[in-house]
Amino acid sequence: MAYFENIDKIKFEGASSKNPFAFKFYNPEEVVGGKSMEEILRYAVSYWHTFTMDGSDPFGAGTMNRPWDKFSGMDLAKARVDASFEFYEKMDVPFFCFHDVDIAPEGSNLRESNQNLDVIVAMIKDYMKDSKAKLLWNTANNFTHPRFIHGAATSNHADVFAYSAAKVKKGLEIGKELGAQNYVFWGGREGYETLLNTNMKLELDNLGRFYHMAVDYAKEIGFDAQFLIEPKPKEPTTHQYDYDVATGHAFLQNYGLENHFKFNIEANHATLAGHTFEHELHYARINNMLGSVDANQGDPLLGWDTDEFPTDLWSTTLAMYEILKNGGLGKGGLNFDAKVRRGSFEPEDLFHAHIAGMDAFAVGLKVAQQLIDDKVLDSIMEDRYQTYTEGIGLDIVEGKTDFHKLEEHALGLTEIKQTSGRLEQIKSTINQYLLQAFAK
Amino acid sequence: MAYFENIDKIKFEGASSKNPFAFKFYNPEEVVGGKSMEEILRYAVSYWHTFTMDGSDPFGAGTMNRPWDKFSGMDLAKARVDASFEFYEKMDVPFFCFHDVDIAPEGSNLRESNQNLDVIVAMIKDYMKDSKAKLLWNTANNFTHPRFIHGAATSNHADVFAYSAAKVKKGLEIGKELGAQNYVFWGGREGYETLLNTNMKLELDNLGRFYHMAVDYAKEIGFDAQFLIEPKPKEPTTHQYDYDVATGHAFLQNYGLENHFKFNIEANHATLAGHTFEHELHYARINNMLGSVDANQGDPLLGWDTDEFPTDLWSTTLAMYEILKNGGLGKGGLNFDAKVRRGSFEPEDLFHAHIAGMDAFAVGLKVAQQLIDDKVLDSIMEDRYQTYTEGIGLDIVEGKTDFHKLEEHALGLTEIKQTSGRLEQIKSTINQYLLQAFAK
Amino acid sequence: MAYFENIDKIKFEGASSKNPFAFKFYNPEEVVGGKSMEEILRYAVSYWHTFTMDGSDPFGAGTMNRPWDKFSGMDLAKARVDASFEFYEKMDVPFFCFHDVDIAPEGSNLRESNQNLDVIVAMIKDYMKDSKAKLLWNTANNFTHPRFIHGAATSNHADVFAYSAAKVKKGLEIGKELGAQNYVFWGGREGYETLLNTNMKLELDNLGRFYHMAVDYAKEIGFDAQFLIEPKPKEPTTHQYDYDVATGHAFLQNYGLENHFKFNIEANHATLAGHTFEHELHYARINNMLGSVDANQGDPLLGWDTDEFPTDLWSTTLAMYEILKNGGLGKGGLNFDAKVRRGSFEPEDLFHAHIAGMDAFAVGLKVAQQLIDDKVLDSIMEDRYQTYTEGIGLDIVEGKTDFHKLEEHALGLTEIKQTSGRLEQIKSTINQYLLQAFAK
Amino acid sequence: MAYFENIDKIKFEGASSKNPFAFKFYNPEEVVGGKSMEEILRYAVSYWHTFTMDGSDPFGAGTMNRPWDKFSGMDLAKARVDASFEFYEKMDVPFFCFHDVDIAPEGSNLRESNQNLDVIVAMIKDYMKDSKAKLLWNTANNFTHPRFIHGAATSNHADVFAYSAAKVKKGLEIGKELGAQNYVFWGGREGYETLLNTNMKLELDNLGRFYHMAVDYAKEIGFDAQFLIEPKPKEPTTHQYDYDVATGHAFLQNYGLENHFKFNIEANHATLAGHTFEHELHYARINNMLGSVDANQGDPLLGWDTDEFPTDLWSTTLAMYEILKNGGLGKGGLNFDAKVRRGSFEPEDLFHAHIAGMDAFAVGLKVAQQLIDDKVLDSIMEDRYQTYTEGIGLDIVEGKTDFHKLEEHALGLTEIKQTSGRLEQIKSTINQYLLQAFAK
Repeated sequence: MAYFENIDKIKFEGASSKNPFAFKFYNPEEVVGGKSMEEILRYAVSYWHTFTMDGSDPFGAGTMNRPWDKFSGMDLAKARVDASFEFYEKMDVPFFCFHDVDIAPEGSNLRESNQNLDVIVAMIKDYMKDSKAKLLWNTANNFTHPRFIHGAATSNHADVFAYSAAKVKKGLEIGKELGAQNYVFWGGREGYETLLNTNMKLELDNLGRFYHMAVDYAKEIGFDAQFLIEPKPKEPTTHQYDYDVATGHAFLQNYGLENHFKFNIEANHATLAGHTFEHELHYARINNMLGSVDANQGDPLLGWDTDEFPTDLWSTTLAMYEILKNGGLGKGGLNFDAKVRRGSFEPEDLFHAHIAGMDAFAVGLKVAQQLIDDKVLDSIMEDRYQTYTEGIGLDIVEGKTDFHKLEEHALGLTEIKQTSGRLEQIKSTINQYLLQAFAK
Repeated sequence: MAYFENIDKIKFEGASSKNPFAFKFYNPEEVVGGKSMEEILRYAVSYWHTFTMDGSDPFGAGTMNRPWDKFSGMDLAKARVDASFEFYEKMDVPFFCFHDVDIAPEGSNLRESNQNLDVIVAMIKDYMKDSKAKLLWNTANNFTHPRFIHGAATSNHADVFAYSAAKVKKGLEIGKELGAQNYVFWGGREGYETLLNTNMKLELDNLGRFYHMAVDYAKEIGFDAQFLIEPKPKEPTTHQYDYDVATGHAFLQNYGLENHFKFNIEANHATLAGHTFEHELHYARINNMLGSVDANQGDPLLGWDTDEFPTDLWSTTLAMYEILKNGGLGKGGLNFDAKVRRGSFEPEDLFHAHIAGMDAFAVGLKVAQQLIDDKVLDSIMEDRYQTYTEGIGLDIVEGKTDFHKLEEHALGLTEIKQTSGRLEQIKSTINQYLLQAFAK
Repeated sequence: MAYFENIDKIKFEGASSKNPFAFKFYNPEEVVGGKSMEEILRYAVSYWHTFTMDGSDPFGAGTMNRPWDKFSGMDLAKARVDASFEFYEKMDVPFFCFHDVDIAPEGSNLRESNQNLDVIVAMIKDYMKDSKAKLLWNTANNFTHPRFIHGAATSNHADVFAYSAAKVKKGLEIGKELGAQNYVFWGGREGYETLLNTNMKLELDNLGRFYHMAVDYAKEIGFDAQFLIEPKPKEPTTHQYDYDVATGHAFLQNYGLENHFKFNIEANHATLAGHTFEHELHYARINNMLGSVDANQGDPLLGWDTDEFPTDLWSTTLAMYEILKNGGLGKGGLNFDAKVRRGSFEPEDLFHAHIAGMDAFAVGLKVAQQLIDDKVLDSIMEDRYQTYTEGIGLDIVEGKTDFHKLEEHALGLTEIKQTSGRLEQIKSTINQYLLQAFAK
Repeated sequence: MAYFENIDKIKFEGASSKNPFAFKFYNPEEVVGGKSMEEILRYAVSYWHTFTMDGSDPFGAGTMNRPWDKFSGMDLAKARVDASFEFYEKMDVPFFCFHDVDIAPEGSNLRESNQNLDVIVAMIKDYMKDSKAKLLWNTANNFTHPRFIHGAATSNHADVFAYSAAKVKKGLEIGKELGAQNYVFWGGREGYETLLNTNMKLELDNLGRFYHMAVDYAKEIGFDAQFLIEPKPKEPTTHQYDYDVATGHAFLQNYGLENHFKFNIEANHATLAGHTFEHELHYARINNMLGSVDANQGDPLLGWDTDEFPTDLWSTTLAMYEILKNGGLGKGGLNFDAKVRRGSFEPEDLFHAHIAGMDAFAVGLKVAQQLIDDKVLDSIMEDRYQTYTEGIGLDIVEGKTDFHKLEEHALGLTEIKQTSGRLEQIKSTINQYLLQAFAK
């Protein structure tokens, strides 16, 4: 059956189209910098936000009008799979992502939960034969159920650690079965509510052990997905251990895991941690750890994770700049970890929202590629750091100097000729590129 | 003499121009919605940020390279006037704004300070004869000098209250002399560092008395400028009394001043208070209190007033939407209360920065006018609030109902048919307008 | 039946007691400043946080272990009433508060909902005959149900306005029936998600009309409770109309309602709006609008409403200082709008948490009374504002001056002798009072 | 000559003393947990805040009344040394800290600056012969002078890198000369204003090289001080590279420097980065990197570094808990990187403020030691993590398990018995300890 009968497949109609159910800027086949938009952007749909979330918030009940909600239990799970592949097809997205509990209900014990998963995974696998949609990544939801109240791999209770491990084990098996290109770890409860009752050292050591076991098991079963940690600073915890990319980087190095993991970076998590989205992407990139992206946006005036669909063109431009400088996302992709607002409760809003996000990143891609083609920022960098290409600067970079030589150099200096950072002009230039991107 | 010899008058060259010293989007003569851009936008240069600030910050000394800094005392003050009119001319801006201490140094007592002011005011008046630049507003700096350490009109010391009054008296006289269209009150020290030593009731009562005396004196001397309060939540105080527009509105009503004042709304002050820029403009507009605008932007990840030149096109669009819906700014204008970054220390950066801001608001103007012309948001509003145009809704609006009738209506309801708020689609539509604005 | 069988009535055992189920500082009968602690503090239990909330959060399912959860429907509602009066008795609290939906489930239509309410209200009334617990306030929950998705009194749909009115009408009747001392309005959905689809002027006008009708109806039925608005800046909305006390004050004045309402001030809402708790209390107090208090605390590093039980003694001291300076809370009280953490899921935690809060405010009361008795802050105020008691200062306060006289005074000034604000010493002194409060 | 003639040496007079110029809680000789308060707390005075800062802020001129300000140039520098040793003596503090430019004015070139330093260093060394005051740490101010506009060791200009190195070289020599126990690196300009013109990879690589050269030079001259990095997230930069302890930890590991540095942790920097003070101390402690402390506090409602004197007893208690659990601070100390408020401009305020801070940490010390003696938190930890001491939990900790065994264990689980985290009770208990600490 069809759940979105009144919606046709979304197609590219160009910037001047007034059809709300068309792409204005995202043209999957358009070649930008040598590859098609589809290949570069690798868009993915989040199963949870699109097919399971109901619009409830801490002060309100669910609002979402979803035609499959007439079903329940495993029937509901199956109806969602039907709806999901219809949606991937109509949105023309090449990837999707899910947590275990998104696709199948938990049973009364682990064995039953796994059996439910097996049924749905088989159904998904079957659908995938005839669909271009691939699994960008899957993960285990080790945060919703009350058993994870004090953490999962960092729970104070060893049984919970074991249960979490079993769920990740199953997740790795599912990932292999469905050909997932990545496997994600988001530690929603891996952190603390208060330091006053927390043995942080033991919890972090256990988290390190957990990750090593996950790496070992993936190797054992021949699952070669890229492993990704998704940083978030807080919420639902007061402090989450994977606070931001740098904190995750410190952890991975501290536990000898830095060669086994990259990062799945979410825009809204970046801003909650006090960073721009592009900062987190950049930090990961220069450390060769940019793995994948949760493409959404937050509200800078709100202190919680709003997971909005991305429409800030400045932000998508700077994000795509980092991604292009990274040589693309490799096995990763742009997953819309984004939810329609509680007030956007009609099925059509799912389409409007994905179109909004896909168009916004397509704009970002085109503008970023033009900035690169024209060496706009590269030229600035070259000029600004020119002193490191010769003389004492080159000595510094090549490790040929020490405090004696540097002092000697400094004692001989009269005036140091500095140049303006030109921030206002640079911003203005990027605005011009943005406004001209579709004027040609 | 000329201070910006190597810069020619900035002209409109259109979006495709690569000349960094040209307007790409601001065309003073272009007619938008029936008026020229120059008439609508009423751009003003801030004297303090452009001609007196030195680039120092709490951790660093001044950096600005300003050719007039070879002078000192009254010679410096005069050199700045020369430079300022050269700048207005070259930037082609129709307005400027200043605090008393920006234009003339304080003397060893009030009388001397006033004498210094008289000299410079006469010089400015002379310049104005041959310049199109007008005084958008002036104000008294009642916050920098140590005497204002515990406030000005809200000081705990009556002598400081008197001194502040004398400075505002002089400011009103200067405003009249130079034909200022507005007079601004920003209470940088009107607030508290701690409640523990503060008599807030007395301080607010005194502030009310102060404003009444200012209104009376302006009337007495026949100075018909619009009076403006500029809200800011904090910094330098811990809590500033004019926290935001709503707080100022409460104050004005409480002291019977609501018909004598409008608001000068600054983007960065809005966000520091937890509001969007457009929220503050909107709140003021629907209460008929939108007077003038300090056009800048903050950094949402920084907790202090960064006063950046505005380049966020989404924000300038929504701001101009409010301004157009207000029927323009009347006597007010768009004052660039914005400073070049400390690292943008060359004179050229002053031009780059103003071009960036003027272009950004010109873009916002054009996009906003098109949104209005096409009734994009108006149509949404009409549909959403349609139930208030008939039946029980109309009764509500016309005040013809009560809790009895409303209960009776509610008891008869079966289902209430709600519609989606469509936020994602609306944002996407605005992005399309933005990207198409200069593609025609 | 008893739900808290293993807990005895909580009694005062003094600071040295090690019994976790005893008050260490709250002694209901202890006289402080002429009244008993019980009379001054007027503690209330929040029905929703204590008897209905389940510990779920945006990323997790309910965790709370509540013995009455074996029931459902009206049986559950009745069991909760039983539990609640057992709890009030054992905690020795004189007041409680509820929303309509806390005490009785909504029916399939308004009539059924009201019938459910009638059953439970009768049961509560019956319990109250033999209990000292009184109803501090009740309110209508006009935010949880999906019908309130776009607001209640500020909905874009007139039917929702009517439905909201009917619920408040019933709430006023229930308040009268149970002898409520106050009636509260918290506009959880009275605000906007985005300005882009919002007619703020119409919505605010409607809110004004709604409040006037509520005032009229209360008068009609002879319900003389104090009406309270509870400000909150955001969450669940992006912007809530009753942002903070000052914003509410502006609104009430603007719609001629300022003599009919006071404020119910919540600590955590204050900090979310960028204010200290004591600031909001103080602002309301000096405007004679301090009505009642939601006693909780937030986490200053988290951006959402955490509703923690209050344990910050500095904050409770400054809050009690404002309350004592207000001459007490009148009809209002200290309602623990506070929830045990999701990880504190055992029934015993409800007792631990209320003891923590009641002790914390009892400490605050004693310290504040001593600060008042010793005129610690009053003396500072007298000294600091001494100049307003004579000469030009007295003229200012008495309205006998103008800008001419003030300028004349200022011209005659040589040096203004300022004095230190002494903040560090004041804070140190308060710490000494705090540490000595129970050492005697 | 004496600068604080009217102040006698501050002595311990006990909690009941009403003398504002006496310690109420800090008794240097009192033994707590086996050591004297003086030995444990190792208080230090910040030279910059106490002897050089003038009270200016971004909107106001200097206000501080300092008797030595009648001097200028090197005479002023010498007067400050006189005043400083008088102050250390009268405050009875065992340590002080300074930046190079605090103690001696910069000359017209590096050589002159170094000569000025030599004069003052000799003077300080001479004073130290007869004083108990020692140098806790010194550092180079590589952020105030315009040459550091784009960074110091991370400048885009190689000459600035060299100049910075020369200043640190001199700093290390001064540290050795004066017997400094630590050497601090605070990278006030080591970060970026915008990513758009920043080569972060080169800058971080250069910073790594710089630190290695510093380590090498200290070794070369036999200066065995502990090296400390002081994290701060932002201000004056938009993003500072040493964002927080975890970020610094990632950096140090990435550049092979983790065995050469510990952290100097500031309370206000912690909260600006979104962490509690105790979080940063704890993270450093469990990684054996807690070196020293900048003891101050911020205002959680303000977004900039307020550097207030610490008076929050809850915070000082939790901080001292971490420090005691660390076995003390080793070579580090508690440096009051705190400034009197701009309104506290009299010399007496310097004494009030230091007394406030020293008393607050003395209280924290006593409460923390009692919490440890009574195993209040340790017992909670033991109970909560008990499952890791046997069975599958012990296997996990000992590395004897894998995903197969864990799954097998999980499949056998029926219910996992969780226990409450008891946060409310724990907080209440700490309050009781606090209030009882001086009641004995």
